[in-house]
Amino acid sequence: MQIGIVGLGRMGGNIARRLMQAGHDCVVYDIDAAARAELEADGARPADTLESLVGGLTESPRAIWVMLPAGKITEGTVAHLGSCLGEGDMIIDGGNSYYKDDIRRAAELKKSGIHYLDVGTSGGVWGLERGYCLMIGGDADAVRHLDPIFATLAPGLGEIERTIRNADADPRAEQGYIHAGPAGAGHYVKMVHNGIEYGMMQAYAEGFHILESKNSETLPPDERMDLNVADIAEVWRRGSVITSWLLDLSASALAQDPELEKFSGYVEDSGEGRWTVEAAVEQAVPAEVLTAALYTRFRSRQTTNFAEKTLSAMRLGFGGHTEKKA
Amino acid sequence: MQIGIVGLGRMGGNIARRLMQAGHDCVVYDIDAAARAELEADGARPADTLESLVGGLTESPRAIWVMLPAGKITEGTVAHLGSCLGEGDMIIDGGNSYYKDDIRRAAELKKSGIHYLDVGTSGGVWGLERGYCLMIGGDADAVRHLDPIFATLAPGLGEIERTIRNADADPRAEQGYIHAGPAGAGHYVKMVHNGIEYGMMQAYAEGFHILESKNSETLPPDERMDLNVADIAEVWRRGSVITSWLLDLSASALAQDPELEKFSGYVEDSGEGRWTVEAAVEQAVPAEVLTAALYTRFRSRQTTNFAEKTLSAMRLGFGGHTEKKA
Amino acid sequence: MQIGIVGLGRMGGNIARRLMQAGHDCVVYDIDAAARAELEADGARPADTLESLVGGLTESPRAIWVMLPAGKITEGTVAHLGSCLGEGDMIIDGGNSYYKDDIRRAAELKKSGIHYLDVGTSGGVWGLERGYCLMIGGDADAVRHLDPIFATLAPGLGEIERTIRNADADPRAEQGYIHAGPAGAGHYVKMVHNGIEYGMMQAYAEGFHILESKNSETLPPDERMDLNVADIAEVWRRGSVITSWLLDLSASALAQDPELEKFSGYVEDSGEGRWTVEAAVEQAVPAEVLTAALYTRFRSRQTTNFAEKTLSAMRLGFGGHTEKKA
Amino acid sequence: MQIGIVGLGRMGGNIARRLMQAGHDCVVYDIDAAARAELEADGARPADTLESLVGGLTESPRAIWVMLPAGKITEGTVAHLGSCLGEGDMIIDGGNSYYKDDIRRAAELKKSGIHYLDVGTSGGVWGLERGYCLMIGGDADAVRHLDPIFATLAPGLGEIERTIRNADADPRAEQGYIHAGPAGAGHYVKMVHNGIEYGMMQAYAEGFHILESKNSETLPPDERMDLNVADIAEVWRRGSVITSWLLDLSASALAQDPELEKFSGYVEDSGEGRWTVEAAVEQAVPAEVLTAALYTRFRSRQTTNFAEKTLSAMRLGFGGHTEKKA
Repeated sequence: MQIGIVGLGRMGGNIARRLMQAGHDCVVYDIDAAARAELEADGARPADTLESLVGGLTESPRAIWVMLPAGKITEGTVAHLGSCLGEGDMIIDGGNSYYKDDIRRAAELKKSGIHYLDVGTSGGVWGLERGYCLMIGGDADAVRHLDPIFATLAPGLGEIERTIRNADADPRAEQGYIHAGPAGAGHYVKMVHNGIEYGMMQAYAEGFHILESKNSETLPPDERMDLNVADIAEVWRRGSVITSWLLDLSASALAQDPELEKFSGYVEDSGEGRWTVEAAVEQAVPAEVLTAALYTRFRSRQTTNFAEKTLSAMRLGFGGHTEKKA
Repeated sequence: MQIGIVGLGRMGGNIARRLMQAGHDCVVYDIDAAARAELEADGARPADTLESLVGGLTESPRAIWVMLPAGKITEGTVAHLGSCLGEGDMIIDGGNSYYKDDIRRAAELKKSGIHYLDVGTSGGVWGLERGYCLMIGGDADAVRHLDPIFATLAPGLGEIERTIRNADADPRAEQGYIHAGPAGAGHYVKMVHNGIEYGMMQAYAEGFHILESKNSETLPPDERMDLNVADIAEVWRRGSVITSWLLDLSASALAQDPELEKFSGYVEDSGEGRWTVEAAVEQAVPAEVLTAALYTRFRSRQTTNFAEKTLSAMRLGFGGHTEKKA
Repeated sequence: MQIGIVGLGRMGGNIARRLMQAGHDCVVYDIDAAARAELEADGARPADTLESLVGGLTESPRAIWVMLPAGKITEGTVAHLGSCLGEGDMIIDGGNSYYKDDIRRAAELKKSGIHYLDVGTSGGVWGLERGYCLMIGGDADAVRHLDPIFATLAPGLGEIERTIRNADADPRAEQGYIHAGPAGAGHYVKMVHNGIEYGMMQAYAEGFHILESKNSETLPPDERMDLNVADIAEVWRRGSVITSWLLDLSASALAQDPELEKFSGYVEDSGEGRWTVEAAVEQAVPAEVLTAALYTRFRSRQTTNFAEKTLSAMRLGFGGHTEKKA
Repeated sequence: MQIGIVGLGRMGGNIARRLMQAGHDCVVYDIDAAARAELEADGARPADTLESLVGGLTESPRAIWVMLPAGKITEGTVAHLGSCLGEGDMIIDGGNSYYKDDIRRAAELKKSGIHYLDVGTSGGVWGLERGYCLMIGGDADAVRHLDPIFATLAPGLGEIERTIRNADADPRAEQGYIHAGPAGAGHYVKMVHNGIEYGMMQAYAEGFHILESKNSETLPPDERMDLNVADIAEVWRRGSVITSWLLDLSASALAQDPELEKFSGYVEDSGEGRWTVEAAVEQAVPAEVLTAALYTRFRSRQTTNFAEKTLSAMRLGFGGHTEKKA
């Protein structure tokens, strides 16, 4: 079917490619002409404004997938598209918007009869090849209408062993996409997905840190082990309880660079990790692990902080302890 | 080759079976005659005492795999076997011993020329079919001698995509077993493996809890979503960043019992989770996530605790707050 | 000076009393006639509507202290008062409002020339006697005008040892009140105060729990100690590094009820603990301790939760572990 | 009465001084002759070996207070003294030994009829003036015999408001010392005291960090507040719920150095913080706050760590995210 795509970065570009490979007709827009040209070379019809993108969509209702950074850019683009579209048309926000923004936008666009779908999209740079895991929020009718798009983007059954499910279970889930609920539900589920991702990453990170520190020259020689962290990551990929895709990636990185010398350990966080903590607080869910994983990232970006200076000040105060140097 | 196996529970019995399916000759012992009889039916040679098990091993050097609960039983059995074996023989502790106990035992047995190997064994009830991930500590010679045993128990390459590794990387890692280092190293690595397992499990658990609580009747109706947690677990299995075997198991459990009504949420912990925290403390590694995952289990087994009562007492003291009922 | 007081609960009533004891003229209102009558008996002039309270204020500019639960009640009352007051008048929110609400309200009221002050008020049920610690946000002129009120409510120097401060340091701080900054700053500082309070309380709570559990019959007899937690709390009050008012209260509670049998351990949390975590997340401050203290309270109010059931389900899945009973 | 004191550092020297000011007869030893000379000038009788110190004690039974760093030095000194003393004599370890070491030493010395007392001593550099809070483990007879020493060192009732206690409550607690239990109990209680201290310090530290970060130039100007952290610490000292001695010290430090520029934030930890976590793990007590406070100190001493590099490696792997610079 026909679809417009706005935002041709790492994610948006590959989404367009995966759709075109399955025969869908993509009209694409990006602020960067080079990005448009690249997609044109891959078979897309480029548009140089949002208006001309809308104009290029000849099927009715029209559907436009917005794949931009969460925040002001997405907000403005959705509003702009809302003013160009009409009754029955569909705007899909495939980015990482805050689910409360989705709920607000959906209500706003509904006034013009426009459907707003929020689609949490996981898969990173591997999605073109592996397919994208899609968590969709919005009106059931619109979700149904766009089924060919979602079915194409999702990974499908693949070679993954099937879960034994009830006969009446939604078959889409094992194809790699779900209609999670009303507006906001798609990004809500994706938000929690990312929260879990933070927690899992931190679990591995702490484990590898404990292993690596067991080789440390600061330990007495008879307590030291000469552990090969790369081999350990590799062996865990087979038969262990902690096999996962994140472990595959870790093993791959460690095989290339066993000390991870390429990395400084400055770790960004995105909105979703923070919103997960806020949702936990709002819903009174103790989320120790997901929160600790977020805080670790905050700390990784600081050389020191006021809290730690305060501790030193107190220690000097009650015990006369002066700081050693790092 | 020939091997003795002591302890025919869930793990030991299946280890014997997997070895026999590959043609190895197993002499087996368990305190429970019924367990011995079962293995005999599967082709093993049963022994009704440790002495007769040792006597049944005709190849030299002799090798005995001990698969018993960590602690006193393993300790006593290893000591007993040590008194029956001699120069060049091998005792393999495949259970979950504390790595400092391994170091002590290895040094003790070395006096009699006996090799002690500690083998962290992951795979749970699925190992017979999937193979066991093995993390081995001990003398290189003994590890080399037992290679046929380890190679049989390990999962092998399977259909798992291969990591790009250096040409000189140890080929055993991608077969599913490694020689981690000297005595204690096997269980040290297994200990950290289980620590990571706790952290990952808790990451999923918190995420599912946040999802489930979004359906709660305690929320205002317009904030509630009717999320299908089972379908969400299923969809994450395909193309998402958080695919893993633990997620597969979760999806399977949720598909059968979406509210997990079968479970009361009383969660045991084993030594390895605790030892991981102790190792982190000893090595000055901040291990927030692994520790929080352990503490959650402690709390799950309490109906209330003295800490929480203390909080209530203070709140009454400064603010006159009386406790509401649960 | 003259002041109106709205809300005559535990806090508001005592604030009026402390002001009247110093000779201030209080016009008071509460929805509950009995509460008004009580204050009248103590010398206040009661009003039976907000309008008559405003009418009873004869000095200009008029000042009204609102001491109500945060949320809709405070919101509505402030709005109502805003419509009754005019240029130069002052509304003081002494409750526990969210600082972002303060900023919004101040901007709104400014349009009518009304000053809005947010005053974080600590002291609990002891404030009448000990005085209240006041953290004030709003316009400097209004804060200066109300200085006699603040100076009366604050504890003053007392017998507390004076900090060596610069000659030009604000003298109000050591009297027990500060002008923290513009609108919102008062409640922001109070919010962080309460966040710290949660963390300190939890630190004591965990410590007492560790002590108490060392007496547990579940420990082997030779590891058990028969610690007297009440005496320990008492001894720490003298000369130790951890003396504090919260410790005084704990010692007092434990002296009366050494096992804290009166308490079930169901611990409420208020908005401020949650907002502190949100502020930390927003400002990228790792706030492990303050957050853990909040999550403990969440957990204290649950008998079990979905996270813990998920852990049990996974353990059954990979290891065949069935749950023990509590 | 007469007492020997070994170790004349910050703590030991002042303990001797406080005892001598009350008329006790102190024979003192330190490896550093200058330290001995200083104490001689204050009225002590110096000894230049442990043997001559023992020889200088003319009363029977003899009592020697050891005030040395925990670990090998204390271990060796106690063993050495054990060989010089006899039936009925007393060795007091006033340092920060691990309570399991106390239990072992007490059992060992008991064979020679020597009493071993472990005395947790809090008070830091302020103890000479304020008195020391003492938590004592060991035989009741020996504790009773040394009562004049303990009563002198402890702060006494002072001006601290008295807790309402039962008539039969141990009167020593409100004098500032307790007989906590058998050998090990003194240091066990002191260990938990220090664990709580870590938690409280971290609670304040995080709170001050949140306040300070609200002034940050990285915030949008309209979200920034110009909070005076020193004044805030000062105001909280009067009438607030979080008054404490640690807050007094913080306020003092902030008054001198509002940005804490003198400090780098490199924070040491001592054995007691770690042992508290180990005790919590051993006794299955969830001790989130005390543990987080320890981990924060570990992290404060690292510039980066392997865990954080692992996170960066994974993020590059799944999302193509390259690290920004600090």
